[in-house]
Amino acid sequence: MKNQLLHTVEGLKDIHPIDTSKKNVIERNILNVINSYGYEQVQTPTFEYFDIYHYKRGTADGKNLYKFFNREGDILALRPDVTPSVARYMATFYSHTRGPKRFCYLGNVFYNNENYQGKLREYTQAGVECIGIENAEADAEVIALAINSLLASGLTKFKVDIGHVAYFNGLVNEAGLDNDTQETLRMLIDDKNYIALEEMLEEHEIKKNIKKAFIDLPKLFGDASILEKAKTYTNNKISIDAIDRIEEVYTILKDYNVSKYVSFDFGMVSKLQYYTGTIFKGYTYDVGDSIVDGGRYDNLLGTYSYDAPATGFAIKIDELLNALTRQKIDIEVLTVNTLLVYNKGHRSTAIKLAESLRRQGMTVELGINGLSTKESIEYGKAKNIGGMMMIKDSDTIILKNLSTDEESTTLISDLVEGGL
Amino acid sequence: MKNQLLHTVEGLKDIHPIDTSKKNVIERNILNVINSYGYEQVQTPTFEYFDIYHYKRGTADGKNLYKFFNREGDILALRPDVTPSVARYMATFYSHTRGPKRFCYLGNVFYNNENYQGKLREYTQAGVECIGIENAEADAEVIALAINSLLASGLTKFKVDIGHVAYFNGLVNEAGLDNDTQETLRMLIDDKNYIALEEMLEEHEIKKNIKKAFIDLPKLFGDASILEKAKTYTNNKISIDAIDRIEEVYTILKDYNVSKYVSFDFGMVSKLQYYTGTIFKGYTYDVGDSIVDGGRYDNLLGTYSYDAPATGFAIKIDELLNALTRQKIDIEVLTVNTLLVYNKGHRSTAIKLAESLRRQGMTVELGINGLSTKESIEYGKAKNIGGMMMIKDSDTIILKNLSTDEESTTLISDLVEGGL
Repeated sequence: MKNQLLHTVEGLKDIHPIDTSKKNVIERNILNVINSYGYEQVQTPTFEYFDIYHYKRGTADGKNLYKFFNREGDILALRPDVTPSVARYMATFYSHTRGPKRFCYLGNVFYNNENYQGKLREYTQAGVECIGIENAEADAEVIALAINSLLASGLTKFKVDIGHVAYFNGLVNEAGLDNDTQETLRMLIDDKNYIALEEMLEEHEIKKNIKKAFIDLPKLFGDASILEKAKTYTNNKISIDAIDRIEEVYTILKDYNVSKYVSFDFGMVSKLQYYTGTIFKGYTYDVGDSIVDGGRYDNLLGTYSYDAPATGFAIKIDELLNALTRQKIDIEVLTVNTLLVYNKGHRSTAIKLAESLRRQGMTVELGINGLSTKESIEYGKAKNIGGMMMIKDSDTIILKNLSTDEESTTLISDLVEGGL
Repeated sequence: MKNQLLHTVEGLKDIHPIDTSKKNVIERNILNVINSYGYEQVQTPTFEYFDIYHYKRGTADGKNLYKFFNREGDILALRPDVTPSVARYMATFYSHTRGPKRFCYLGNVFYNNENYQGKLREYTQAGVECIGIENAEADAEVIALAINSLLASGLTKFKVDIGHVAYFNGLVNEAGLDNDTQETLRMLIDDKNYIALEEMLEEHEIKKNIKKAFIDLPKLFGDASILEKAKTYTNNKISIDAIDRIEEVYTILKDYNVSKYVSFDFGMVSKLQYYTGTIFKGYTYDVGDSIVDGGRYDNLLGTYSYDAPATGFAIKIDELLNALTRQKIDIEVLTVNTLLVYNKGHRSTAIKLAESLRRQGMTVELGINGLSTKESIEYGKAKNIGGMMMIKDSDTIILKNLSTDEESTTLISDLVEGGL
């Protein structure tokens, strides 16, 4: 029997100081970029009424939610995604306003999923929602912003795959498939399950070119040349319009100077059914899952009685930090500069000196724990503290560099302006 | 019937952009101060095994928790307090290390309480835990840090009341009261229910001076003179040692130059039973509840098989923001500088200009929503955007100050270094 008292809950984790500091830096850098595009941060609650994630909205699979009750007996769920909450927020507070809205958020999401491959069940997302604009400029803006956000985190080697749900939908339409068949097809393509895919298509009477398109879809990804290739499978307007849209988005992304991070994937048939247009996913090395997911969802807001087009993305901060760590990309974090130790008789001097140094921007830890000098040195080194100050007398301190062990003496009055 | 789809769950709220920005600033300033004392930030999960909050630890009332199950059938609870998680974290990862540990955190906590007075059921806490040091210096450090954290948020008018659980415990000991009576007494004193308090004390045979102490306890608060007064009620060592400890803490707080924010309260008999020594609460005007709670809890870590003394505090960020807002204390936040509008023909120029300005640190929103110039001006003013840029031709833009409506013309090449 495991000792529950010393463990985090299955799929959840403690984040150590060094990683928390790095996470803070990444989040700050990403939010700075997002803010620089005019996106305003909102905070929505950690849980919502379960109905917010109603299956008809396609926002989440109810089985994968953490569900519970409050004192009022309402069924609640920890959010698996912040987008439905922002949509609800938008509908509540801005239904009478005109013009676009640009919102962003930073917060944790929760999946009560089957814990294969050690997937996290709680992780942090930073995301944006661009509401009220249905054009290629908006699609391109959020994709460029996703790319610039990843760059701001320090990541350099990554790709953002762009697709469009209407390419697949147009083919399905043309083939005249019923809903159940569509769903099975979507699943098989998403899983790249070629054999079952071919078997299934054999069972249906479908035009040859469409059948070939479905079979090729899982492989229909790559650089811009794939756009031309996608056109060869069909002439139906829905699918062709989808390709045209992606081409326009790509043209704009060149102006953003981020096209080298872009590739295309028509086999991306999102399981999140609220997507309605251009969709994208970002991948890097050394982590299995995507690090950013995004796309257009023009029908979601309407389900909250506020009919407006929208597009957005969410970056998985913890996965991103994993990738940065594994790719050995350095993230500069603040560490403790100084351990200040003293004998009881100099307590007052020590406290005043520490306070003065902190006001000057230094990080100073007071040695108030009764350790000997030798123990303090060991402690400081173990915590990677840069230097140690030892109060010698009321005027003088000894400075010790904890990396080199070099020592020097200095006047306290030289360290503080205007005396203590 | 209320429309659940447009509402947050009872007791939870959406936080608008202006308040989210202010919250970010407050949190950052507070964490900077906390870090400057050598505290390292950790992140623990949003929920834990319910057993972590076991009643014997006195960390929370199980009735007030949001409880639920995961797929494995474990009973889980949203954290009502981060301290038990940090204690668990400490016991898991640092049980074999020596020396003190200073941890801090920022995160949301959850109370499934009865929603009287519109109390929030989810709110953000920033807190510290100073582990492994049992002396007045550590007590004073966390109190000084709490005060400096509040000052860093911009708050100036507040008091931190200091008490000590052993003063009350010593009296209870002396009076020889059983546990149930102690609890009733604690509750009546905490509620300042004088009449029921006197009635209850009448029912027990208690020494006259002790009875008077219990009756006076709810009023035993004020400046340092209250320390002398507290000594007049008893000679029992436990209570007197408690006063001596507070006096030493107060002496140290004078060195920290924060004693003017300090007062004393012996009627503070915390309901959180994990406190074992010096305790404190911070109050300001215009909000009913405390904005910071803290104190010493020397027995909690032992319940996770890591026996170590500890002290800490948690600041209620949302209450603090409320107080700052009501006290009209300005918090400077970043707003959108510029709305950049263009005709379709200048899209490429507009995007390149926007990207260049963003790299220079400006906040630029692109007018890609097809609004007319007049509508864009209205939109920009409604969003409090400072100025508008309109691309006139490929070399020139018109700058419009949205506060004064003044216009000027400038060369694009003057705004970007090295051309687009």
